[in-house]
Amino acid sequence: MTKFKGVVPPVVTPLNPDLTVDYPSYTRVLEHLIDAGCHGVFVLGSTSEVIFHDEKTRRDIIEHSAKVVNGRVPLIVGVIDPTTDRVIAHAKVAKAAGADAVVVTAPFYTVTSQSEILDHFRYIRDAVDVPLVAYDIPVCVHIKLQRQTVVTLAREGAIIGLKDSSGDDGNFRYALLDLAEHKDVFLMTGSEIVVDNVLQMGAHGVVPGLANVDPHGYVRLWDHAQAGNWEAARKEQERLCRLFEMVWVSLPRTSAGSAGVGAFKTAMRALGVIATNTMARPQRSLNADEAVKVEEIVRAAGLVS
Amino acid sequence: MTKFKGVVPPVVTPLNPDLTVDYPSYTRVLEHLIDAGCHGVFVLGSTSEVIFHDEKTRRDIIEHSAKVVNGRVPLIVGVIDPTTDRVIAHAKVAKAAGADAVVVTAPFYTVTSQSEILDHFRYIRDAVDVPLVAYDIPVCVHIKLQRQTVVTLAREGAIIGLKDSSGDDGNFRYALLDLAEHKDVFLMTGSEIVVDNVLQMGAHGVVPGLANVDPHGYVRLWDHAQAGNWEAARKEQERLCRLFEMVWVSLPRTSAGSAGVGAFKTAMRALGVIATNTMARPQRSLNADEAVKVEEIVRAAGLVS
Amino acid sequence: MTKFKGVVPPVVTPLNPDLTVDYPSYTRVLEHLIDAGCHGVFVLGSTSEVIFHDEKTRRDIIEHSAKVVNGRVPLIVGVIDPTTDRVIAHAKVAKAAGADAVVVTAPFYTVTSQSEILDHFRYIRDAVDVPLVAYDIPVCVHIKLQRQTVVTLAREGAIIGLKDSSGDDGNFRYALLDLAEHKDVFLMTGSEIVVDNVLQMGAHGVVPGLANVDPHGYVRLWDHAQAGNWEAARKEQERLCRLFEMVWVSLPRTSAGSAGVGAFKTAMRALGVIATNTMARPQRSLNADEAVKVEEIVRAAGLVS
Amino acid sequence: MTKFKGVVPPVVTPLNPDLTVDYPSYTRVLEHLIDAGCHGVFVLGSTSEVIFHDEKTRRDIIEHSAKVVNGRVPLIVGVIDPTTDRVIAHAKVAKAAGADAVVVTAPFYTVTSQSEILDHFRYIRDAVDVPLVAYDIPVCVHIKLQRQTVVTLAREGAIIGLKDSSGDDGNFRYALLDLAEHKDVFLMTGSEIVVDNVLQMGAHGVVPGLANVDPHGYVRLWDHAQAGNWEAARKEQERLCRLFEMVWVSLPRTSAGSAGVGAFKTAMRALGVIATNTMARPQRSLNADEAVKVEEIVRAAGLVS
Repeated sequence: MTKFKGVVPPVVTPLNPDLTVDYPSYTRVLEHLIDAGCHGVFVLGSTSEVIFHDEKTRRDIIEHSAKVVNGRVPLIVGVIDPTTDRVIAHAKVAKAAGADAVVVTAPFYTVTSQSEILDHFRYIRDAVDVPLVAYDIPVCVHIKLQRQTVVTLAREGAIIGLKDSSGDDGNFRYALLDLAEHKDVFLMTGSEIVVDNVLQMGAHGVVPGLANVDPHGYVRLWDHAQAGNWEAARKEQERLCRLFEMVWVSLPRTSAGSAGVGAFKTAMRALGVIATNTMARPQRSLNADEAVKVEEIVRAAGLVS
Repeated sequence: MTKFKGVVPPVVTPLNPDLTVDYPSYTRVLEHLIDAGCHGVFVLGSTSEVIFHDEKTRRDIIEHSAKVVNGRVPLIVGVIDPTTDRVIAHAKVAKAAGADAVVVTAPFYTVTSQSEILDHFRYIRDAVDVPLVAYDIPVCVHIKLQRQTVVTLAREGAIIGLKDSSGDDGNFRYALLDLAEHKDVFLMTGSEIVVDNVLQMGAHGVVPGLANVDPHGYVRLWDHAQAGNWEAARKEQERLCRLFEMVWVSLPRTSAGSAGVGAFKTAMRALGVIATNTMARPQRSLNADEAVKVEEIVRAAGLVS
Repeated sequence: MTKFKGVVPPVVTPLNPDLTVDYPSYTRVLEHLIDAGCHGVFVLGSTSEVIFHDEKTRRDIIEHSAKVVNGRVPLIVGVIDPTTDRVIAHAKVAKAAGADAVVVTAPFYTVTSQSEILDHFRYIRDAVDVPLVAYDIPVCVHIKLQRQTVVTLAREGAIIGLKDSSGDDGNFRYALLDLAEHKDVFLMTGSEIVVDNVLQMGAHGVVPGLANVDPHGYVRLWDHAQAGNWEAARKEQERLCRLFEMVWVSLPRTSAGSAGVGAFKTAMRALGVIATNTMARPQRSLNADEAVKVEEIVRAAGLVS
Repeated sequence: MTKFKGVVPPVVTPLNPDLTVDYPSYTRVLEHLIDAGCHGVFVLGSTSEVIFHDEKTRRDIIEHSAKVVNGRVPLIVGVIDPTTDRVIAHAKVAKAAGADAVVVTAPFYTVTSQSEILDHFRYIRDAVDVPLVAYDIPVCVHIKLQRQTVVTLAREGAIIGLKDSSGDDGNFRYALLDLAEHKDVFLMTGSEIVVDNVLQMGAHGVVPGLANVDPHGYVRLWDHAQAGNWEAARKEQERLCRLFEMVWVSLPRTSAGSAGVGAFKTAMRALGVIATNTMARPQRSLNADEAVKVEEIVRAAGLVS
């Protein structure tokens, strides 16, 4: 299993004003990412507002994605819901609909321990024949996948990889060291702003939400890193850091949750990729004043003239 | 709307060893609670392991509950899932299946603000014609329903009540004071161990998970409080505090999440109310040694001879 | 040791505009509290801005307090600093200067465990022959004195009492139950707003910062509780809850730390007890607009006509 | 002001069994660091157990350090205590005793806001004529120095640098970008395990506690980074990551606070640099079994044969 690597954006889900999925825009997003050279796509992640979508919509999104992607790059699918058997149900749908791998978080709402989290992944692995990627996102699930949990699951073959959105890069580094001999396991960061660093540590891929706005930037960053051209990687990363500042524009009028994806959607609308910046309920969308500020940031980063 | 008050236990959901719902046991739980004089039942709450159940199972549980309860006491139903429109879907099912009111938490997994939480409740209220009860449970959803949020929603008629499982009894008292003139709003605590105090503050009801084990105790406590017999209420509460210590028996082998409900199920099995102490995956059930300790606590509290 | 009980306010430390202690005002504060019938005074607590005062000022404050109090009520003294041996040094000074007991928190700045906290109290007890009161204040020291820690220290005689400012009244109740046979141990709450409840649980005393503003109110509340007149206690508590709302007036311009004590000082200035509402650096004092709002609250509570 | 840069270890304070400072060992520590090529020393930091030392001991330590260092490298001194005026007192002593700069945290114990933190640094700067370095250490003071706070203080000249021990490397990167034009400001990380990354971002220095054990390793890492030899830097960093694992050896018997510095002391004793691994009270020192494990880690890292 070496096909998962490189820049794998968590794909934004464009919405119509009536909150249904805007599939024409969605198709454009996928083409925009693949055209730019992204190495995979991760649909139905946190950035995709997965948690707002019901079973039927999730199935439709996966099937639509599979049709558009059509094998050009791997299709990784988030199967994110609070508890084991509900995740298993999503994973079966995802596999049937064309997922190459599925992404699973720790349980949430319910309070669990690392032992129960280990069992959570094992139960899912036993129930569905599809590769599992562990998703470490304490800001959403409020528990960390500890180093030992990730390493144990990877060594016993329960997971094939990790998406680390914990922000704890020291811990991530230890996972890389512990699993250095496991060439089939891939470890990816969810960071937008320290990607050069994490690649220098040896990370196998990067899953930045901001790549929806500027996929070329992250592909260039990846290519610089592959070439060992760290100074160029740093310059590209620093430009992307300035672009990332869009995520604070609407605070505190909106929540931190809606401010980030809401800014990505607003920028993508400005770039002509999607039709609206509508966010799923009860999130607030960015307003006109905030959109002007996002567009200034987009322009300053050189994405439009 | 004055029918919601008193002791309203969050009903444990008994499971078969294959993790399906054990309906014969479930019927016994409901009869056990109603026979003891409980004033309502709250099904599909956190204690009911609601978050582990899919849509179909939830519908079956509500319908079964409605049939067994048969109007003898109000039937309050948790419609707990991460985001607005998913909650609306559950609320429609609950109403159709016989719920007298539904219980709604703040959104979870996604990060929201108090403004977005206000909108969350308003959207649900507008979409479904069923009374809403707000459920403040930061240990599960990781955000508090602030005093001003609860008071605003109650004053504008978006909610008819509150179940407060936050442990912040000072804040709860301010909500009681702020809403003292709103005679149609009821405010209930989720505490097991300071029920006498919260009733003395003027709370309208109590939703203790431990009432699954000892409903008579909480009904006596309620009756003492109604009679202004605070010394007797305190003595009853202190006995129940000792009984409540069962929730720490299996720590840290199990998580805090499974230790509490797992102990209640174990005690109910010992009392002959339910058949197994099986917990939904990936939670761990209490083992034989832990069951012995729970049974000793049950015996010490005078529930068995 | 049964002399510690009742209403024991944490005494505000009035400051001159140049940040030195305003002793004439301080004398008036102590007389104001003793005249109102308070059963003890707790100087150099958090409310006293103890953490801002150096060794010499602390010694002066204790000596001044001892002289003014002159044995009329017990004098309890906070010896609050980050680590064991620094606390021991303060405790020796406090004993020499006339303290009847000293109040000790868990270590802070450094990260410790419950085992190390146990040793912290034991080392202090062995080094200084003065009764120790444990002070549970996680909002300042960022670790909770667990029930087992408090109970162990009380049973082995290392502490004679607890001041619980943790807000975890359920845990406090278990400490009361566990130590019910230890008649020489007293357990006090730091709450301002659930005092009636905590007294009904059996607490031996109350240490409310707001008693600096309205000592008569808390003494009446205590007397009602002693008489078992819980309805009158509740009414008094509810009036004090409205008075307590002064602590939110200056937020977010000031921090939560300065908003509370700053409001108490502002109210005491309005009542003619102290000369300024100056706060120690870097805290912000309440400004004129905020003072007007505090005064309105004071008037609404019936303290001035 | 360009003299602060490079590897600046926070110097461990060796103790005698009676808890006094072991100055002969302390002299050896300083020589060990300077001999290895460290570019400065930071005494009386968290790693130095500063918070356990009283005023007199702190003065003695600074004076001893100044005498041993004797201008060979800059001497940076922590002046760490909870509140503004107490820090000012320490800073005056430090300046008089020979400090080239002093290191100041946010206030602690008391709860403050970013506005009050800004004032805290300004008051200190106005009171003492010695360069200030801001120390961001939320694990100890429980509040973060926000990016805007650090940048504001640096731009107005209130601080000359930052030691960032927050672990939030993304935020640190933004501070580097914001202050890129301020050539006189230096930004250092407190990390032990992502030093290569932070240097690649452009950090001016590194303050790793582990450098007490292996100063040569961090100097080599710094030199590789200066030469742009990032692959060699990474290899050195990975070796140091394995060495750093000593900090978890004594958990959970000791606290996290004592486990880290306790392990450094244990390793330094094994290397013959200091005489005991004694920790200040109430911290627990590592025991014999734990010392064996630390020594194995030291040996595996190639520090002894």
